[in-house]
Amino acid sequence: MEKTIKVTGLSELDLQCVQTIRFLAMDAVQAAKSGHPGMPMGMAPAAYSLWMRHMRFNPADPKWINRDRFVLSAGHGSMLLYSLLHLCGFDLPLDELKRFRQLGSKTPGHPEFGHTPGVEVTTGPLGQGISNAVGMAIAQKYLAARYNQGDHKIFDYKIFTISGDGCLEEGVSHESSSLAGHLGLDNLIVIYDDNHITIDGKTSLSFSEEVAKRYRGYGWNVIEIGGDGHDIAAFDKAVEYAKAQSERPTMIKLRTHIGFGSPNFQDTHTAHGAPLGVDEIKLIKQSYGWDPEKSFVVPAEVSKHMAQCRQKGQALQSDYQETFKQWAKSNPGLARELQDGLEGKLAIDESKLPTFDPATPVATRSASGKMIQAVMPGLPLILGGSADLTPSNNTHFKEATDFAKDNRGGRYIRYGVREHGMGAIMNGIAVSGPLRPYGGTFLVFADYMRPAIRLAAMSHYPTIFVFTHDSIGVGEDGPTHQPVETLASLRIIPDLLTFRPADANETVRMWKYILNYKGGPVATALTRQNLPVLDPAKYPNMKNFDKGAYVLVAQDKPDVLLLATGSEVELVLKAAEKLAAEGVKAQVVSMPCWELFKKQDAAYMSSVLPQAVKARVGVEAGVRDGWDRWIGDAGRFVGMSTFGASGPYKACFEKFGLTVEAVIAAAKDSMANVKK
Amino acid sequence: MEKTIKVTGLSELDLQCVQTIRFLAMDAVQAAKSGHPGMPMGMAPAAYSLWMRHMRFNPADPKWINRDRFVLSAGHGSMLLYSLLHLCGFDLPLDELKRFRQLGSKTPGHPEFGHTPGVEVTTGPLGQGISNAVGMAIAQKYLAARYNQGDHKIFDYKIFTISGDGCLEEGVSHESSSLAGHLGLDNLIVIYDDNHITIDGKTSLSFSEEVAKRYRGYGWNVIEIGGDGHDIAAFDKAVEYAKAQSERPTMIKLRTHIGFGSPNFQDTHTAHGAPLGVDEIKLIKQSYGWDPEKSFVVPAEVSKHMAQCRQKGQALQSDYQETFKQWAKSNPGLARELQDGLEGKLAIDESKLPTFDPATPVATRSASGKMIQAVMPGLPLILGGSADLTPSNNTHFKEATDFAKDNRGGRYIRYGVREHGMGAIMNGIAVSGPLRPYGGTFLVFADYMRPAIRLAAMSHYPTIFVFTHDSIGVGEDGPTHQPVETLASLRIIPDLLTFRPADANETVRMWKYILNYKGGPVATALTRQNLPVLDPAKYPNMKNFDKGAYVLVAQDKPDVLLLATGSEVELVLKAAEKLAAEGVKAQVVSMPCWELFKKQDAAYMSSVLPQAVKARVGVEAGVRDGWDRWIGDAGRFVGMSTFGASGPYKACFEKFGLTVEAVIAAAKDSMANVKK
Repeated sequence: MEKTIKVTGLSELDLQCVQTIRFLAMDAVQAAKSGHPGMPMGMAPAAYSLWMRHMRFNPADPKWINRDRFVLSAGHGSMLLYSLLHLCGFDLPLDELKRFRQLGSKTPGHPEFGHTPGVEVTTGPLGQGISNAVGMAIAQKYLAARYNQGDHKIFDYKIFTISGDGCLEEGVSHESSSLAGHLGLDNLIVIYDDNHITIDGKTSLSFSEEVAKRYRGYGWNVIEIGGDGHDIAAFDKAVEYAKAQSERPTMIKLRTHIGFGSPNFQDTHTAHGAPLGVDEIKLIKQSYGWDPEKSFVVPAEVSKHMAQCRQKGQALQSDYQETFKQWAKSNPGLARELQDGLEGKLAIDESKLPTFDPATPVATRSASGKMIQAVMPGLPLILGGSADLTPSNNTHFKEATDFAKDNRGGRYIRYGVREHGMGAIMNGIAVSGPLRPYGGTFLVFADYMRPAIRLAAMSHYPTIFVFTHDSIGVGEDGPTHQPVETLASLRIIPDLLTFRPADANETVRMWKYILNYKGGPVATALTRQNLPVLDPAKYPNMKNFDKGAYVLVAQDKPDVLLLATGSEVELVLKAAEKLAAEGVKAQVVSMPCWELFKKQDAAYMSSVLPQAVKARVGVEAGVRDGWDRWIGDAGRFVGMSTFGASGPYKACFEKFGLTVEAVIAAAKDSMANVKK
Repeated sequence: MEKTIKVTGLSELDLQCVQTIRFLAMDAVQAAKSGHPGMPMGMAPAAYSLWMRHMRFNPADPKWINRDRFVLSAGHGSMLLYSLLHLCGFDLPLDELKRFRQLGSKTPGHPEFGHTPGVEVTTGPLGQGISNAVGMAIAQKYLAARYNQGDHKIFDYKIFTISGDGCLEEGVSHESSSLAGHLGLDNLIVIYDDNHITIDGKTSLSFSEEVAKRYRGYGWNVIEIGGDGHDIAAFDKAVEYAKAQSERPTMIKLRTHIGFGSPNFQDTHTAHGAPLGVDEIKLIKQSYGWDPEKSFVVPAEVSKHMAQCRQKGQALQSDYQETFKQWAKSNPGLARELQDGLEGKLAIDESKLPTFDPATPVATRSASGKMIQAVMPGLPLILGGSADLTPSNNTHFKEATDFAKDNRGGRYIRYGVREHGMGAIMNGIAVSGPLRPYGGTFLVFADYMRPAIRLAAMSHYPTIFVFTHDSIGVGEDGPTHQPVETLASLRIIPDLLTFRPADANETVRMWKYILNYKGGPVATALTRQNLPVLDPAKYPNMKNFDKGAYVLVAQDKPDVLLLATGSEVELVLKAAEKLAAEGVKAQVVSMPCWELFKKQDAAYMSSVLPQAVKARVGVEAGVRDGWDRWIGDAGRFVGMSTFGASGPYKACFEKFGLTVEAVIAAAKDSMANVKK
């Protein structure tokens, strides 16, 4: 096939390396009986050159903090990445490639962060990788601004990503690319694999926009390269040009051919997402003069040539360590700060934590804002932001300047009205070594960024999603802005912690927990409306906040348990008082984080929810789903079963029956139910 | 203020009308103590002209099928719309404007479909409206192609929308706008309220892309108009130009000023989302020579002038009815079809429904594909499609051609890799009179379109979301593509029906139900992998499918209930057989649609789930949340508590303990638990 097209910038040996990458991809997909061979076949020449000639990395230390980052946004082409990792000498043996897509292998269907050395982020759901890359580019700029000193450029890496049509069609990539242009992220280089084919057929079925014009509209450089993916001389020049930029991110739009070299399937969607078939692979191998009967072949000269990456990488990192040592010597304070950041050590000054007067009601979003104001100035490795709801989310602190083209040391990111982009960008920041991001929007708009939240959970990125306006308490904005099912929708995501604090003091404890937690992402649900402040003197059990649920009002042999979260804790406290006046002993439980509570031992759990007490009421201004687990067969639930309504929030609570009276009635009903 | 800028195209009387719109918005927001006055103030002149001079509608019949559609994508500016509706003579009295944002009023914080006459779609969550408008434009094109005959153009309406920066920043608008350009929807006119202000401050904080260039890249016309929102002569020309297009959608980019006329808050984000304050409003009224002490004033001449809309509308519709009558006479078949469509009548030819051999396993996605193939050719008012997963979703039928620039009668929409866009576009089709849309993607990517699903549910749009690849049964694609929490995430959305059929025959019944259901949106969860076909002769209770759950294997005084959905019904059936061999009577229940089951009467519910039987096992390849309600305190659940893994699907089921043996063990455990 290469004979019919012009190849530039690749020697015979280079071409054999390229061919090896292609055959490894074809063979692995064939062995797995599933996967995507076409993309690696088309992109192999450019990817080969990128890794061998342009990117700086050390296969022996895939976590080297100044490595160039590579993001395969088109994650379905995972065999391209696995082939490169293997051939470049990362700890990914050929046997793992043979076990592509098998349970327990290091080569899952789509790249998974934390699972395979050299995989920087989890990709597959389209549009996420390129958006993560924008976050990585922000992170590099911030790290460079904070730590580089004079000639000691300890952070000067670039971010490279390969994106297909699919990534560029997804809205999240539009959002993040627009922001990347706005921020002038010249350290970001996107290679667009323009192969004209999608699953349904030709991209022209649904995608005829001028991508270059669109990206130029975003403020990017766009370099268009023809040559059927084999004009590597031009590609190399384009990469060099892109690396030399100082104003704009660059897209290299590369016309390629999916399934390149396949006599029957090149340029067809057949090559996209299924094995080519044994016969076709044989035909291709024959046409390149390879032994058609052999699979997973890595010619010795290819092996030797590409293994040079290891020496090159070691040398790069050695030189770097020298620079780093000198830098650390000259900048001991910064060096300590960076080291602490890399180890996830935090110094929260307890003396600065806000306190709240129990006499003055406070919205938990405001308490959160006070906490942010109190601690963030002392935590320079946390980058804040909001999707254009700063005054509502209370995410800003006064020392924070905006991260901008001309202010790379700014710690506050104005994401714009781009929730999904924000989520994916935050994930990119979260994997960038010592940094940690938080970003705000309304709880109901968690829906807009759900795919990013899911990936954060799956990949254990320590991203902090600050959601405010957490119920019908939103009031007048109405049902479109009032979450009713959103809290439940977050609780069901594995490995995500969801917090709904009951007052200002719980909010402070929540933030302390979050800042010290490194296990994965967290989400908050904070009120718009003011809530009473729970007096710590009156409710000493709040010390058990970190256990996810605790007894706020204890009873000896309680008649009924009243369970609530967030703003509804006020309701159950009042109900308990009234019930007490009637001689009913109601134990009140605040349940700010179910996920943490589920991890407690049986003894603690039954101290909070005594098994003998079957009369229970769960109260939450959200849907019932999930609550049955806590209230049991005899329990009652006071909450929402429909969408909300536009009106003053107190009227909304009344309308939907979230009242003290309803809690009391439910308690009595449940008690009667138990007696039956 | 107008004195300082040049006004064109508006008379003194026109200006007074414009001012009335502004003051109604200011007064209503002030009375409600919340809302968004700034956008109506800036956009009033253009919106006034649009409604008075360009749009064709009849206030007396807001459902006239050939009315021009108006979508306020920037839904927070709802008072602009309510003011226009009131002044143009829709059934929205001034008293309702005075009750803006109060419970039970016709003027909720954001426009709600079905709630206020003249509101075409629910907007507020940004980016949705403009995307709905793309769906409406597709619908108009299809209806015109199908029904217009010669001079009888019974569908020749246009779609107008006002979008702000926020809408254009949201990824969903990028997706739908790109598709609109691709499809050459010349009937779509977007007015971009370019006011340079967002909640955080100036748009330049986060949004500096060249919107015009981006839209031209999508294949749109873009007309840029300065004049501070008051060069209405230019605006009028632009609208006329846009209406005359025959190749491309048009964006009219209008430089406006948020909070126009407010001495202290114009061009500031203070004017965006909060009342201006009594004093400021007085100042503004004074500056325009209005009585500062009076609110909600509609001058008699304004009232009279704008009420002309009613006569004009009546005349337009009368003329139309004449044309329609002639058309109906000449085209009785089409007229009947259209009438049936408007009434939601469907003629499903039962003789064509597919049947399945119980000996041959079939994936439910394939069964769904067969059903689509069987019925859709006879249902010309249903438009299908997929977000670039047609061969996987089995959503195509062979008679369907692609809806395209040169094929407006095509019934299959190639949405591209744009799930969110697809969801919002389908919602726009769903509100377009007689049409109904269905569209496919993987279940896990329901997350990408969740905001559109939520709005469909809230607004009762009859959109059909076809989700396939519904569990770890996806296999090798791995955890990024395996839903575990997604089914639960759909079930918790109020007013959405979620179906997970257990086999091919349940799938046929599901589709019959869906096609006859008009209450709102539905979502399906269909398998990638083959499942045994349940023999209708052996399982006659399947006739109760429409009740949401039914007894597949009945027992007299069962020892245990085994409950499952979808692919896990196979597991519980096998477990029941093995338990029977051990003398344990296990009643097997298939639960394809929880929402329908919840609506059944107590007698039916307890016939399926006898209250006396506390030993219960729920089995589903998803998270537990929601199941506790069915299995109760003594129940056990066999399902997922983590994300999935990449591997052959059978190995995945094994790895995560979704096996017959696990079901049997859980059954025994629950039975033991009951005895305790």
